Amino acid sequence: MAKSINDLHLKEACVQAAREVIAEHGVEGWSMRDVARKLDISHQAPYRHFPSRDHLLAEIMRRCFEDFAHFLDQKSKAKKDDELRGMGVAYMTYAAKHPLEYRLMFGTPWPEPAAHPDLVKYAVHAFDVLRRNLLQSHGDKRNAKQQSELEAMFIWSALHGLATIDQSNVMAHLSLSKGVQKKSMDFMMNMIQSALESGQSDEFIKNEFK
Amino acid sequence: MAKSINDLHLKEACVQAAREVIAEHGVEGWSMRDVARKLDISHQAPYRHFPSRDHLLAEIMRRCFEDFAHFLDQKSKAKKDDELRGMGVAYMTYAAKHPLEYRLMFGTPWPEPAAHPDLVKYAVHAFDVLRRNLLQSHGDKRNAKQQSELEAMFIWSALHGLATIDQSNVMAHLSLSKGVQKKSMDFMMNMIQSALESGQSDEFIKNEFK
Repeated sequence: MAKSINDLHLKEACVQAAREVIAEHGVEGWSMRDVARKLDISHQAPYRHFPSRDHLLAEIMRRCFEDFAHFLDQKSKAKKDDELRGMGVAYMTYAAKHPLEYRLMFGTPWPEPAAHPDLVKYAVHAFDVLRRNLLQSHGDKRNAKQQSELEAMFIWSALHGLATIDQSNVMAHLSLSKGVQKKSMDFMMNMIQSALESGQSDEFIKNEFK
Repeated sequence: MAKSINDLHLKEACVQAAREVIAEHGVEGWSMRDVARKLDISHQAPYRHFPSRDHLLAEIMRRCFEDFAHFLDQKSKAKKDDELRGMGVAYMTYAAKHPLEYRLMFGTPWPEPAAHPDLVKYAVHAFDVLRRNLLQSHGDKRNAKQQSELEAMFIWSALHGLATIDQSNVMAHLSLSKGVQKKSMDFMMNMIQSALESGQSDEFIKNEFK
């Protein structure tokens, strides 16, 4: 990366450089100036493609959500036998392999330009797939839509929670017994499965949505 | 707040001002200079009590964890009949009322000085209470320790996940049916309860820890 970057590649180069700068300085502690410095270009050059730091950040977030959506789709195509568990494992795998991207997507307040339909479409994709699968499992039951949404919120919460706790600093201080952290994902999927099969979900819907 | 601040109160004033600055600029986007400016004191003054920005941040985190621990203890004393649900509700209430503090505790990489025993003690408190309660429920079963840790990880993941998703920008774009977001905590606690009572947890331990 040096002064030879031409304008066609500048946009891409800015996105890549910004990802590196964010990895170094944190999501909130970086500037367009850092990006320009990394690319050895003028301070004004990144503004040719991005009107503000927030626009550049939103573009990075959009790409993260898009990558994540494609990753989940590919994994769920590959594994049809136990769809829910397959999706859970894929979700956790992505989060563990891409901690910065995961934190950008789900642990960072969005900058204003992020509310763009393009980004939103990918941002809700994982939840939509989950909700749709659950809806199918309920057939034409009364309030099936509400039920599948509540179930999807429960499953997503557990997955998201474990993904972020696994990466948190507290984790190292819990002094868990040997084997516990490694087995926690499997255990959680078993618990979710048995909760879904318990009839408790039907019961709740019957009582709460009349 | 002005130049009248004497040294005795300076430490407290720095902590308060830093909390406000963090609320405005984000966890990573603030400086000791911002704190000094807010208090209208010299740039060097905050360094009399905190050797670095990271030390000040660690002190804020320590206080957040301490507050949170005391809050959970008080709530669990108040409600003895359904301890697990009471603790869950208390956890979610705190997260909803103190989003910045919650994010500082569980959504932010710790600065180095945060690994201090004082902070760590409070940071693991909620998990320890949960783990201890679950351990009691298993009596002297084989591998009761591992089982209570796996169950605590599952419960904490679900609570933490829902707390952060509730506050995330994605939430507004999920187009949930009416009533679903409000009922999601209750639904989740029911699902957790029925999973714990299903026998699945005993089964898992029997198969995985021999």
